[in-house]
Amino acid sequence: MDIKSSKFENITVLVPFKLKNPKTRLSNLLSIEERKKLAIFMLSDVLESVTESGVGSVVIAVPEESSASEISRVVNERKAEVVVDGRSLNDLVNHWIAQLSANQELAVIMADLPLLTPDLLTSFFSLNGDIVLSPGRKGGTNMLLVRNREFEVSYHYGSFMKHVEIAKSKGLTFSIFDSFFSSVDVDDESDVLELLIHGKGKRSREYLVSIGYGISCEEKDPRIVRKR
Amino acid sequence: MDIKSSKFENITVLVPFKLKNPKTRLSNLLSIEERKKLAIFMLSDVLESVTESGVGSVVIAVPEESSASEISRVVNERKAEVVVDGRSLNDLVNHWIAQLSANQELAVIMADLPLLTPDLLTSFFSLNGDIVLSPGRKGGTNMLLVRNREFEVSYHYGSFMKHVEIAKSKGLTFSIFDSFFSSVDVDDESDVLELLIHGKGKRSREYLVSIGYGISCEEKDPRIVRKR
Repeated sequence: MDIKSSKFENITVLVPFKLKNPKTRLSNLLSIEERKKLAIFMLSDVLESVTESGVGSVVIAVPEESSASEISRVVNERKAEVVVDGRSLNDLVNHWIAQLSANQELAVIMADLPLLTPDLLTSFFSLNGDIVLSPGRKGGTNMLLVRNREFEVSYHYGSFMKHVEIAKSKGLTFSIFDSFFSSVDVDDESDVLELLIHGKGKRSREYLVSIGYGISCEEKDPRIVRKR
Repeated sequence: MDIKSSKFENITVLVPFKLKNPKTRLSNLLSIEERKKLAIFMLSDVLESVTESGVGSVVIAVPEESSASEISRVVNERKAEVVVDGRSLNDLVNHWIAQLSANQELAVIMADLPLLTPDLLTSFFSLNGDIVLSPGRKGGTNMLLVRNREFEVSYHYGSFMKHVEIAKSKGLTFSIFDSFFSSVDVDDESDVLELLIHGKGKRSREYLVSIGYGISCEEKDPRIVRKR
């Protein structure tokens, strides 16, 4: 770990991950096996950027034992700890926030953000505030940094707006991290297009290309095509 | 103009603008009159941020005389020059690039980026490179900064990828500006949702709210609703 990045040693990164029938909105494009592979490659891309950013530790939380063993290959490689935790996303994250000790910080980073880079993450970790929020499309909170354990999360149903309101109601300061690449959580077909356009060098993109996906620019707006 | 912003005095901002049947992908949501009003309010939001960022001059290029007079109210207020130019977007921008003199810079900023802020623009203008590209969804180039008149634009059909390739082929250096808020060009319903979520204080958002638009968070993903 180099000197530049060691300033984030007080950060624990929590990556919630689900492997059971993942990414159902991509069912028209990918079989369930392909969706599982894509999910694992995206997790691998996220872990690569997160570990290179120099954080203290990385924890992947999966709901069931069977998924934990399936991702062990990726995880061993990337030096992250896997914990099995069946709680809902909100209960899981709030549990981790409640355990925060003084001077420790918790980052919650979604596993479907393959366009993250180490530089992007160091910018994110460097913003001020009790809370740092990184918006996704549709009111999502793609990344969250918590420096005060009075905060509570409430994902889905417009989590970004809710998280701003929760911070305000508790008198906590917050920053908003403005990033296109962290706004792209790969959820539907339009997000796959973004990965294909901007994800050069990422394993998840290489996987999509290896199974025939590419971009057609024959119309005014590019779209994804599968060649085989 | 304060000292901080005067460092961008060598930048001319070109804002191409079309008022004839604008934003057709919003036809299901808004009447043609409402779409025109939204387009003008978005232009007004863009101009406000651009002028506050301290650039040297702002030029709005419109294809026909009738549109030019319609936007005069917004423009007088914001100290931008309106020029009537019927060329295609590519010909228009390439003409302006070809006219660049030494030490002058041209920024091409789309008129449908209401979430821009002065701080965002100063970050954009401060990036290094002969070219700075700010990606939109679907391979778009929402903002472009040109510091070398050897560059040429080619909008639509995946302009972001094409602009990267053009820069490389001419041996020009380039940076990519990573911003969620400048990635949101209001084009379809999903973009209107982003404006409603993140555009507090923007005239375009206030207009949408004034005609009854709001956000429903009753489902996992928020969606837009019209109350009247």
